[in-house]
Amino acid sequence: MSSHARIGIVTVSDRASRGEYEDLGGPAISAYLNEVLSSAWEPVARVISDERTLIETTLSELAADGCCLIITTGGTGPAPRDVTPEATEAVCDRMMPGFGELMRKVSLEKVATAILSRQTAGILGGSLIVNLPGQPKAIGECLDAVFPAVPYCIDLLGGPFIETNADRIVAFRPKKN
Amino acid sequence: MSSHARIGIVTVSDRASRGEYEDLGGPAISAYLNEVLSSAWEPVARVISDERTLIETTLSELAADGCCLIITTGGTGPAPRDVTPEATEAVCDRMMPGFGELMRKVSLEKVATAILSRQTAGILGGSLIVNLPGQPKAIGECLDAVFPAVPYCIDLLGGPFIETNADRIVAFRPKKN
Amino acid sequence: MSSHARIGIVTVSDRASRGEYEDLGGPAISAYLNEVLSSAWEPVARVISDERTLIETTLSELAADGCCLIITTGGTGPAPRDVTPEATEAVCDRMMPGFGELMRKVSLEKVATAILSRQTAGILGGSLIVNLPGQPKAIGECLDAVFPAVPYCIDLLGGPFIETNADRIVAFRPKKN
Repeated sequence: MSSHARIGIVTVSDRASRGEYEDLGGPAISAYLNEVLSSAWEPVARVISDERTLIETTLSELAADGCCLIITTGGTGPAPRDVTPEATEAVCDRMMPGFGELMRKVSLEKVATAILSRQTAGILGGSLIVNLPGQPKAIGECLDAVFPAVPYCIDLLGGPFIETNADRIVAFRPKKN
Repeated sequence: MSSHARIGIVTVSDRASRGEYEDLGGPAISAYLNEVLSSAWEPVARVISDERTLIETTLSELAADGCCLIITTGGTGPAPRDVTPEATEAVCDRMMPGFGELMRKVSLEKVATAILSRQTAGILGGSLIVNLPGQPKAIGECLDAVFPAVPYCIDLLGGPFIETNADRIVAFRPKKN
Repeated sequence: MSSHARIGIVTVSDRASRGEYEDLGGPAISAYLNEVLSSAWEPVARVISDERTLIETTLSELAADGCCLIITTGGTGPAPRDVTPEATEAVCDRMMPGFGELMRKVSLEKVATAILSRQTAGILGGSLIVNLPGQPKAIGECLDAVFPAVPYCIDLLGGPFIETNADRIVAFRPKKN
């Protein structure tokens, strides 16, 4: 399997999708990945509204399109239009509760409202889907928390061998037993 | 929107509902809210048995009756009659996993059996529903943990602007970006 | 109720079930229970492949066979064949999210990939089912974290009164109120 990784980056925001608001989340994720990844990767970016059906379709398309990792930003709060976790759960074969737990724990050290973030993660075919909150400043802190486990997860899903800049993030790969 | 808040307080207990046992949980929640809230509020209290259908109906009625927040106590353990989390999940549109995670974490600092509490939280229309354990002494420690995030959650659900006594609980409201 | 406890021990592993690989997880659980339990108990051990239907059937049979506790090892990761949590959730009446949260938290202190473990716990009739990861070294650390709450949980499910060696694990039983 090539080490060239396609990574979906999905900004879920009514305002950004209508152009009323500059998408800051998607570029923040791209910048993060450029900084952290040392192996080749290619972004597949989308900016979509907070429509559950559209989110589901987009996630399914990116997975079918060979993205080993799909990172969403936005739509994880309690507001009526926030449905990214529901769309994620609807398309995933199996859920990964540890991602949301750890991201909320880390965010909670910063803001008491971190418990309002309903973000989750799961697996759709060969893709790991991870929800991030919409606030650009939360993106780095959430990814720093979970990214050490992401390359090994992608290995287990049969995806490309992802390498990281070890001074930034050490990818943890347990020794086989 | 008026700052006058209707808050549902639901004691779920077979024994309390039959009058075999004094309801301590409901009054403990009321006392807590009187101490913490500085804006106007009105309790809508119910004492019901551990019947899943009755719990679901009660939660739905309180939500339809304009309660922006519904707090339950009881029925969160592993005993066969404990079904409050199932009833809550059945009526909610969207779940809020961060509440249960944080309450269990805080209770675990006190008792090893905190992991047996299956309490959750979720959103039903414009209402935030939060399960608390049945033990009166756990009520304050659980509410202290999650309450800083509750007023902002209610803002996001279009509910009344809730204010707290800052020497008791500081309501956290992130700056809009 | 007798204090004699039947405890199911289910190794879920394609390789172990085909005999390509020695089952280390099941014996590690037995050794742990022999060390920790001071009351009488009897293991009911199974080694099965990572087939969801087979896992479900096995869990249901062990519950019907009077096991008050069923501990699984293996099949909790993100690999395509890992479906133990799904099988567990499918057969359980009610879930116990606190077990998975605490086990992941404890494992995370050791390895960053602990968030990839999707392990859960739940109740099926009178049985508490707890998933453990497959790695033998994770078994002790996960059981050490959750076992203090297990005897009281089994009490609440109407099972046998389980006693532990207090120098190893103190079983926590809250005083009745």
